[in-house]
Amino acid sequence: MVELYDTTLRDGTQGEGISLSVEDKLLIAKRLDRMGIHYIEGGFPGSNPKDMEFFERVRDLSLTHAKAVAFGSTCRAGVPAHADANLQALLAAGTEVVAIFGKSWAFHVHNALRTTLDENLRMIEDSVRFLVANGRRVVYDAEHFYDGFKADPDYALATLRAAQRGGAETLALCDTNGGSLPMEVLEITRRVVSEFPSLRIGVHTHNDGGLAVANTLMAVEAGATHVQGTINGFGERNGNADLIQVIANLQLKMNRPVMTKEQLRGLTDLSRFVSEVANVKPDDRQPFVGRSVFAHKAGIHVSALLRHPETYEHIDPELVGNKRRVLVSELSGASNILYKAQELGIPLQKDSPELRRVVETVKRLEAEGYHFEGAEASFELLLKKAVGRYEPYFRLLGFRTINERRDVYGAETTSEASVKLQVGDEIVHTVGEGNGPVNALDSALRKALEGVYPDLKRIRLADYKVRVLNERAGTGAQVRVLITSREDGRSWGTVGVSTNIIEASWQALVDSIEYGLMLCGVRPLERAAVGG
Amino acid sequence: MVELYDTTLRDGTQGEGISLSVEDKLLIAKRLDRMGIHYIEGGFPGSNPKDMEFFERVRDLSLTHAKAVAFGSTCRAGVPAHADANLQALLAAGTEVVAIFGKSWAFHVHNALRTTLDENLRMIEDSVRFLVANGRRVVYDAEHFYDGFKADPDYALATLRAAQRGGAETLALCDTNGGSLPMEVLEITRRVVSEFPSLRIGVHTHNDGGLAVANTLMAVEAGATHVQGTINGFGERNGNADLIQVIANLQLKMNRPVMTKEQLRGLTDLSRFVSEVANVKPDDRQPFVGRSVFAHKAGIHVSALLRHPETYEHIDPELVGNKRRVLVSELSGASNILYKAQELGIPLQKDSPELRRVVETVKRLEAEGYHFEGAEASFELLLKKAVGRYEPYFRLLGFRTINERRDVYGAETTSEASVKLQVGDEIVHTVGEGNGPVNALDSALRKALEGVYPDLKRIRLADYKVRVLNERAGTGAQVRVLITSREDGRSWGTVGVSTNIIEASWQALVDSIEYGLMLCGVRPLERAAVGG
Repeated sequence: MVELYDTTLRDGTQGEGISLSVEDKLLIAKRLDRMGIHYIEGGFPGSNPKDMEFFERVRDLSLTHAKAVAFGSTCRAGVPAHADANLQALLAAGTEVVAIFGKSWAFHVHNALRTTLDENLRMIEDSVRFLVANGRRVVYDAEHFYDGFKADPDYALATLRAAQRGGAETLALCDTNGGSLPMEVLEITRRVVSEFPSLRIGVHTHNDGGLAVANTLMAVEAGATHVQGTINGFGERNGNADLIQVIANLQLKMNRPVMTKEQLRGLTDLSRFVSEVANVKPDDRQPFVGRSVFAHKAGIHVSALLRHPETYEHIDPELVGNKRRVLVSELSGASNILYKAQELGIPLQKDSPELRRVVETVKRLEAEGYHFEGAEASFELLLKKAVGRYEPYFRLLGFRTINERRDVYGAETTSEASVKLQVGDEIVHTVGEGNGPVNALDSALRKALEGVYPDLKRIRLADYKVRVLNERAGTGAQVRVLITSREDGRSWGTVGVSTNIIEASWQALVDSIEYGLMLCGVRPLERAAVGG
Repeated sequence: MVELYDTTLRDGTQGEGISLSVEDKLLIAKRLDRMGIHYIEGGFPGSNPKDMEFFERVRDLSLTHAKAVAFGSTCRAGVPAHADANLQALLAAGTEVVAIFGKSWAFHVHNALRTTLDENLRMIEDSVRFLVANGRRVVYDAEHFYDGFKADPDYALATLRAAQRGGAETLALCDTNGGSLPMEVLEITRRVVSEFPSLRIGVHTHNDGGLAVANTLMAVEAGATHVQGTINGFGERNGNADLIQVIANLQLKMNRPVMTKEQLRGLTDLSRFVSEVANVKPDDRQPFVGRSVFAHKAGIHVSALLRHPETYEHIDPELVGNKRRVLVSELSGASNILYKAQELGIPLQKDSPELRRVVETVKRLEAEGYHFEGAEASFELLLKKAVGRYEPYFRLLGFRTINERRDVYGAETTSEASVKLQVGDEIVHTVGEGNGPVNALDSALRKALEGVYPDLKRIRLADYKVRVLNERAGTGAQVRVLITSREDGRSWGTVGVSTNIIEASWQALVDSIEYGLMLCGVRPLERAAVGG
């Protein structure tokens, strides 16, 4: 069975924009354990003192399946292993398994380590032997192995033999610079597998050539049985091999099961969970788990899809916990909108005047800059309005926001908003503050509505995005606001477009609240009187 | 030589969030021509009438190198080629080269076309023959070829033979569902290359398994000499093979030159240009050309990098027009900040109190939520302040923004901002309007400053992003604003963080204007008097 070795918590945090607290790391470790990952590389205790705290606290998590791994380098040149501070820190981490990296490439030995080829072999063997003598199982990461092998195969293999003599259990071949080609990885890995039949061979790739996943699969094809990577491919430069894609390809395409079917169905959630903890926007185009990857737009495809999903899907999205979406866009005809209505349980008929009206409206709004692909809740409201299934929860009479700052020591900018609404028969006029005009509006709006609709308290604004459209138009440009709201694990997106950011935000905010109330099953308050 | 066949304008526009006007398409076609792309698939005239306009207008561009290609399907079942409206539309597009797709997979013939296997062969042969008889060179796209071959190799090959009999010049093998593995593509393509020695064999892959680029390279390895893809991998679901990555790998890794060295240096610009035209945020992690892909963060790497860049870079970034960056982040020590200062020509000394101060400040600001990785202009200002090389262009005395909407028919939300500044000896108090509070502030600020600093007119706000940090903190959350500004082809990013979005925007706005004035070589107005 192929072993899964995750290094999100170590190599992953080298990526631009990725930063994880100890709390974050523990959250992720727990989830990786549940998903059946075999090894979790938690950090580099010799280089980052903060990482030691992780290893202390990970013991209390009592992982049921995964083993935490401490990572470090071999001893330094001229220093015996037992006297090396980094190796001492590795032991202090107290893990059963440790990973150490050493140099495979003569160029690096000369120019980065600035020592001799023989001393490098001594450093590798001595370091591994020291760790093994202290009761550790050792994964030896052969840094730059593929580049080193291409430059001097004999020396590259000699470094692996040094690790073998020291007692390493696994030899992980690294494509550190991420520039190797799949055929090279296939051939070089085959050679190593045949030279070291008694050791487990692993692979650790980077994505600089856009080939990290392919290279990992090629190494497995060649006989490797240990794959290193990070969730979502986080990592330095353009990242490590994405373990999500590696797992899905191994299990669904190469017939190499690495986890249970139920765990595999957790792959989409795992990917999004890690993005959320790392505070990184999920990649909508990420293979297998991205939001767009089972999304269909072209009319041609959609009509075939309605008959046989497998005609345009390489796998059933549910196998990895993802789902199919049909996109509403200017390329789409009535058939996409019909599919969407069906999905939402909205009774829109083929060739009906309502359908024609929706198609026209969508076209006009998209020309103005609306984009329903990221705002399906707004689209659903639009459909409901078209078929007369929508009743407003309130009517706006007016709003105002004020933001102010004076040059007084310690002064903060203040935001205030007032809204005047009609709810049922009542006129409600409230004022709120917030960390900016939108939050102030949100706060005033909630004050006005929460008395009547207490479920509103469960709904919160989770994300707020602004995009300036047609930048070249200068100050006349439209802005598009996308709001994501959450309630009890569910989330939905709404959109507003205007030349005024506050107006656009207001539209998205109102949709988000109305949709949320609808989701919670709340009925709009009706007016007692008729007029108005 | 391997032919480059771009389908950004056709298959690329099937991607979620991608929409191109005819103007956009013409802009892109012109640029692709300059870059040495051989074929530009411009649209599907039979399915999208808007595409016909492209083919009419592309003739006036007088492309020097590339040929525009019209795309369509074979004739329908039961319809002779000459009577098929789609094929007529293809001819009407007036291109020398046309591409048509047909079915290779029996499953699709039965379930999508709902016809017989023989009729499918007739449709392919008859359609190709008709186009050739009308003077066209034909690329035959064998849709779902790899899946079809895996299901029934004989029938899949028979469809190619039908296209050959019809007179096709190129057979492009498609991995339409994007789920094939590199080894499969290698073996199947080898087989086709050996069966059709007199035809050019091409490849068209999708990225559903994360393997589109690898699969394209494998097909070339197997003898294919025509590669289809899209710039940045735009395309339905998670996209087509990214031609940017395919080109860079072919030319720099596989020793298959496909363009001149100078064109290759235009690859980064091409990628960003197409993203800009499509109004899509560039992918910072895109191999070869992304902003992060030659960015270095880890202390270990950076010190080796300073000695020998090739130790941690698979290629010289300049070969593709990209550049190296050293990131300032919490993982980085003083050495990264030193490198950055050196790069910027700011005299910061090793072990100096100034350096220690900067390291402390960066740590504190990052803990508050600042992120300098996307805001290098703000970081540069911070460094300049630390070494006493910064003089402010003005002093803020106060600002206020007001946004208002009343429920009057046709009413728009209005935004107004006033600012009070001290510039030199003057007190300036101005008011401005805008499409939201930030633009109103920008407008008032410009009114206050443009008299004194007329260069400000050249600087414009190009993009404005908001991110809610620590979403779980609710309304107490910090927001981070990133502003991108432009002046004459240069662009720079600045950051502001606050619980108040207006305050955060103000910080980023002020940095953006001050940095822009500095870039333009404008000196701050000094105060005549001393005090204040």
